[in-house]
Amino acid sequence: MEQFEIAVIPGDGIGKEVVPAAIRVLEAVADIHGGLGFRWTSFPWSCDYYLKHGVMMPEDGIETLKGFHQIFLGAVGMPRLVPDHVSLWGLLIKIRRELHQSINVRPAKLLRGLTSPLRDPGEFDLVVVRENSEGEYSEIGGRMHRGADEMAMQTAVFTRKATERAMHYAFELASRRRKHVTSATKSNGISHSMPFWDDVFQDVAQAHPEIATSKHHIDALAAFFVMKPQMFDVIVASNLFGDILTDLGGAIMGSIGIAPAANLNVERSYPSMFEPVHGSAPDIAGQGIANPLGQIWTGKMMLDFLGFEEMGTLVLKAMEATLASGVKTPDLGGKATTTEVTDEVIAYLRRRA
Amino acid sequence: MEQFEIAVIPGDGIGKEVVPAAIRVLEAVADIHGGLGFRWTSFPWSCDYYLKHGVMMPEDGIETLKGFHQIFLGAVGMPRLVPDHVSLWGLLIKIRRELHQSINVRPAKLLRGLTSPLRDPGEFDLVVVRENSEGEYSEIGGRMHRGADEMAMQTAVFTRKATERAMHYAFELASRRRKHVTSATKSNGISHSMPFWDDVFQDVAQAHPEIATSKHHIDALAAFFVMKPQMFDVIVASNLFGDILTDLGGAIMGSIGIAPAANLNVERSYPSMFEPVHGSAPDIAGQGIANPLGQIWTGKMMLDFLGFEEMGTLVLKAMEATLASGVKTPDLGGKATTTEVTDEVIAYLRRRA
Ligand SMILES: CC(C)[C@H](C(=O)O)[C@@H](O)C(=O)O
Ligand SMILES: CC(C)[C@H](C(=O)O)[C@@H](O)C(=O)O
Repeated sequence: MEQFEIAVIPGDGIGKEVVPAAIRVLEAVADIHGGLGFRWTSFPWSCDYYLKHGVMMPEDGIETLKGFHQIFLGAVGMPRLVPDHVSLWGLLIKIRRELHQSINVRPAKLLRGLTSPLRDPGEFDLVVVRENSEGEYSEIGGRMHRGADEMAMQTAVFTRKATERAMHYAFELASRRRKHVTSATKSNGISHSMPFWDDVFQDVAQAHPEIATSKHHIDALAAFFVMKPQMFDVIVASNLFGDILTDLGGAIMGSIGIAPAANLNVERSYPSMFEPVHGSAPDIAGQGIANPLGQIWTGKMMLDFLGFEEMGTLVLKAMEATLASGVKTPDLGGKATTTEVTDEVIAYLRRRA
Repeated sequence: MEQFEIAVIPGDGIGKEVVPAAIRVLEAVADIHGGLGFRWTSFPWSCDYYLKHGVMMPEDGIETLKGFHQIFLGAVGMPRLVPDHVSLWGLLIKIRRELHQSINVRPAKLLRGLTSPLRDPGEFDLVVVRENSEGEYSEIGGRMHRGADEMAMQTAVFTRKATERAMHYAFELASRRRKHVTSATKSNGISHSMPFWDDVFQDVAQAHPEIATSKHHIDALAAFFVMKPQMFDVIVASNLFGDILTDLGGAIMGSIGIAPAANLNVERSYPSMFEPVHGSAPDIAGQGIANPLGQIWTGKMMLDFLGFEEMGTLVLKAMEATLASGVKTPDLGGKATTTEVTDEVIAYLRRRA
C-alpha cells in the first residue's frame, strides 16, 4: 500500500467547493485501487487568511509544504479584497518558484460529451508545456516619477537553464505522443528575449532529431487555437504565452472550468502542485454550482505523476461518461450542482471497478 | 477636389499582391466620389531591398515619408531570408515609432457572408485600441554569458503619457459607439507594469464617467473572444496584448486575411500608416490567391481617417456583398482569385454609385 501525504490548499472562492469534490473522487479511486492511500492536510492560506494575518501564508509555510509528497490547490485570488499581485505573489507564484515547480503542464482535448464553441473543432488533443519559473512574470521592475511623467518598467528574464528545461520536457513528452513540438515565440516584436528563445529552441530541437518542430508567433498561434487546434501536439511556451494559450485551450474545450494543470518539480526534489487553470470565480462562489471537473482532471494529473496512470485514465473516462450523460454544471449549459456532478463521476468509477 | 499624396509600401510576399488590389478599389472610390483624388508613390522597401542594400529602407526613408499625407503598407517579413526582428524593427516598427503612430486601431466584427469558426458568434462588433509605441516591444535588453549560463533580458516600458493617450482614445471611441471600454491587463502575474496599467485605467475611467468599464486579465480575455465576443465594445490593450487579441479577432471573423488596422498619429503631426493585421504569407505568395479584403478594409480605414466616412461605409458594404455573393479566396473556403474578389468589390461600388 502506497500512502501519500497531500497538502491541500483550497484557497478562495470556488476553490473551497471544488477541492473537497475532487478529494471525494480521489478517495474513491484509492478505495477502488486498494494499493493507494492519501492523507489530506488542509491549510487555510487564502485572501481571507491575508485579511486576518496580513500575509497569504505563515513565514514557515514553504518549509511546511516541503514535508508533503504533493500539493493539491484550488484557486487563489479575491481581487475586490486583496490586489491580485499581492495574493498571487504571496501564495501561488511563491510556491511555484520556491518549490522549483518549473514546468506547468496543461492539456486541452475535445472531450466526449462536451460541446466546443468551435463549429468544427476536429479531434484536438494538445498539451501546453509552460515555463513556470521566470520569463515575463518577474520581480524586477518598478515605477519612477509621479504625475504626468510617471512610468513603470518590468524586466522579463529568460535563462538558458530554465528555457532548455521546459523545452526538453516538451520534446520528451512529444516522444511519447505524436512527435511534434510547436514553439510559441514573438521574436518579430520582442527583440531580445524572444530571439534568444528561438535560438534555444533550435538547439534543443537538434538534440531531438526524431521530433518534428514548428514555430509560430503568439498572435498567429492564438488564432490557430481557434482555426485548427488539431494541428498541435505539444506546444512549448513562456510563462505568459503559456498562460494565455491554456485559457484559450479551456475555451475551445467548452469551458475554462474544465482545464487542468500540474506545476511540476520534475527533479522531484520538492512536492509538485496540482491546480486547475480556472480562477476563484467569486461571482459564482458559494452557490454550489461550480464545475468540479477542472479540479477532478487536475487530480487525475496528480495520479499520473504519482505513477498510477491506469487510475488517471479511468478518472478521465468517468468525466467523459458524466458529461455524455448530461450531468453538467451551468457553465456547460447544464443544471447539475457541484455535488451531483461529483456523485456521477464516483458512481461511474464504482461501476467500472 | 481634395488630393492626397500616399506613400505605398507593398513590402513582402502577398503584400505585393493585395496592395495593388486595394489601390484599384480606392481609385474606384475616388472616381465615384469625384471630390477626392490620390497620388500613389511606391517604395520598394522590403526584405528583397534588405538583401540588396543591407538595410530595410534608406537612411532618409523616414524623412521621405514625412512628405506624404498617409502611408499604405502591405506586409513585411520573410523569415527564411531575414530574421523577423531585423526586418520589422528596420521598417514596420521603425515607422510606427518615428512617425508617432502611437495608436493602433483594429476592428473585428461579424461580416455578412463570412462564416465564423465559432458555433454561435453572436453579432460581435468590437474594436481593439492597441498602444503602439512602447510596452513589451522595447529596445531595452540583451544577453549575458555564453553556454549553460546564458540569459536574456527584455524590459517593457510603460509611460503614463502613452498609456493615457491610448486609453483616452479608447474612451472617446466608445463614446461614439456602445459606451463600454474593457481593459486588458495581467496585473496578477506581471507585478510592476500591469498594476501601473490598472492605475492609469482607473484614472482615465474617472475622467469619462459616462462610459462603463470592465477589466480582465489577458488570459481570460482571450478566452472570452472565443466564448462570447459580443460582450465587448472597445478594448484597450498594451502593444503585445493588442497584437494577440487582434489576431484572435481575425480568427473569429473567419480569417486573419480579413482583419484591417490603422496605425494612427492622432495629433496628425506626421502621416498615419494603414496596414492589415495579416503578414506576408510567403507560403501562398505569388499564386494570385491572397485575400485582398484585409487590405481593402484597411483602405476603408484610411478613407475614414481622411474624412470620407460615407465612402468608407460603402467599401465595407461592397466587401460584405462580395462575400455574400460567394466570391471568396481559398482561405475563406472559396475558389476566387485576388483579382476576381477585387473586381467584384469594384463592380458593387459602381452599381451603387
Ligand atoms: C509583424 C509584427 C511585428 C507585428 C506586431 O506584432 O506588431 C504584427 O503582428 C502586427 O500585429 O502588426
Ligand atoms: C492567477 C495567475 C497569476 C495565474 C498565472 O497567470 O499564472 C493563472 O492565470 C494561471 O494560469 O495559473
